[in-house]
Amino acid sequence: MRILVTGAGGFVGRALVRRWRGAHQLVVQDSSCDAIRHDADEIIEGDICDSGIQAEALGNGVDALVHLATVPGGAAEADPDVAWRVNVEASQRLIGLAAKLNPRLRVIFASSIAVFGEPLPEIVDDAQPLRPRLLYGAHKAIIEAWLGTLARRGELQPISIRLPGIVARPQGPSGMKSAFMSEIFHSALAGEPFTSPIGPGASMWLMSLSTIIDNICVGIELAPEALAEPFAITLPALRVTMRELAGEIARQTGSSCDRIIYAPDVKLERDFGCYPILRTPMADKMGFRSDGSVSQLVTNALGSIREEV
Amino acid sequence: MRILVTGAGGFVGRALVRRWRGAHQLVVQDSSCDAIRHDADEIIEGDICDSGIQAEALGNGVDALVHLATVPGGAAEADPDVAWRVNVEASQRLIGLAAKLNPRLRVIFASSIAVFGEPLPEIVDDAQPLRPRLLYGAHKAIIEAWLGTLARRGELQPISIRLPGIVARPQGPSGMKSAFMSEIFHSALAGEPFTSPIGPGASMWLMSLSTIIDNICVGIELAPEALAEPFAITLPALRVTMRELAGEIARQTGSSCDRIIYAPDVKLERDFGCYPILRTPMADKMGFRSDGSVSQLVTNALGSIREEV
Repeated sequence: MRILVTGAGGFVGRALVRRWRGAHQLVVQDSSCDAIRHDADEIIEGDICDSGIQAEALGNGVDALVHLATVPGGAAEADPDVAWRVNVEASQRLIGLAAKLNPRLRVIFASSIAVFGEPLPEIVDDAQPLRPRLLYGAHKAIIEAWLGTLARRGELQPISIRLPGIVARPQGPSGMKSAFMSEIFHSALAGEPFTSPIGPGASMWLMSLSTIIDNICVGIELAPEALAEPFAITLPALRVTMRELAGEIARQTGSSCDRIIYAPDVKLERDFGCYPILRTPMADKMGFRSDGSVSQLVTNALGSIREEV
Repeated sequence: MRILVTGAGGFVGRALVRRWRGAHQLVVQDSSCDAIRHDADEIIEGDICDSGIQAEALGNGVDALVHLATVPGGAAEADPDVAWRVNVEASQRLIGLAAKLNPRLRVIFASSIAVFGEPLPEIVDDAQPLRPRLLYGAHKAIIEAWLGTLARRGELQPISIRLPGIVARPQGPSGMKSAFMSEIFHSALAGEPFTSPIGPGASMWLMSLSTIIDNICVGIELAPEALAEPFAITLPALRVTMRELAGEIARQTGSSCDRIIYAPDVKLERDFGCYPILRTPMADKMGFRSDGSVSQLVTNALGSIREEV
């Protein structure tokens, strides 16, 4: 398959390109492609908003588009206009151009659980309405809706997959307000203290990087007839409290739980620490999978840190 | 109140400006404002996509924005790129600019029942998911969603009102695929034959122009605390079959039903002639109203034709 991966130089993109190296014909796009230069078949280095870059990336068409390029949550709040242009306008143009070249195009769109907004009910399932409060969540919901319309019109074959918190992201600035979910891993490996901005009982929806990649593969391989309304699924994330996560990380890294200081930030806990029970029958039926257990989640997350280094 | 009406030279805009003349300070925008030049306080003639026109229209801010400017259904299908730019991008920019100038801004957004798509279930109510197939419907759903997000953030006070088929539009090209709903009125007044592109039992959701204007007034006057999720309502349209409509028009105009020839177009009937039972408890509670009866709908529609001439 000839596959275009946008935002391929990012955290998820790098791991995806590494997984697919040799198995698919990979066209990769990002503003900087240094980290993936030797893993891809074609390198398109430039701004996803640039129509020349979009045309170059699509060439004479691709079989699939994995659209990861995005301005994430915190960065979107800091610059709403740029975020709208990248997350909505550039996405809509790229998708339209790709669909015009190939009406059987498979699109995997990296959406986000930010589409739900808060407060959430005690149980979230496939019927949960989308009421985002973060701009990033609204942008993702808009492209989900647009892909659904194009699917109904027979213009492409999309599946939007709502990513939960992904562990463990690399250290350093990411524009993600949820970066603390990964920092707890890095601080454990470094034996350093960690200040949690959410309380011990605060609950998150998490998935390891390798399981995210597994699920993108599931999305690429789905039979066309498996794609159905609303052409968007919530990935079957594990619901984990900060206390459970910290305990399991301590156990697997041999670090101490004493190094964790809880200093909850009301706003951050509201946005990232109040995730209720999650049921994802639609995704489960399509073959998408969770990490299975907190223990496996932490093992996978620590594995991805070692692989990235 | 200082109110900006976009698309004010259009069918709904003209009637709204006429209704509000003298009662509000009216800033009107359209590519041509000839029909409303003497009814408004400020005339902004130009393209709604032009950022200079947007800035000029908003000046130092307005109390309310009635956003009617749009590329309608048929025209959107004919030029998808222009339609996206007007219906989504220009709308998002105008709304953002207006909200920045006044965080208590009331926005009345003219959405459409095209947000629902088809097929529809036997009863449509406030829980009906939005699954548009027409580009126009998708654009409207996207701006509804965006306004909802801005409302949740406290950046404005919006209500999206989903307009049903409006009778009677003036004769002539409108870019509306649903123009036949109005042509049946004009042909009756002219005593001419009418070919219906939907069968006699096909059902529509209809509202007269004057009741649409009444409902825009309801939206403007709603208390802020009355605005609630999802910040969008379906107007309580009347469900009317083509046979009922034709019969009532014949009765009130003294024309004959024999002049009606039914030549159903499968695609048009699917898009415009399969509207099921409609329940709108949210809109009803907020004070939005239907025409009440087919007889009153036809009386109101014929009245609007006489007023427009």
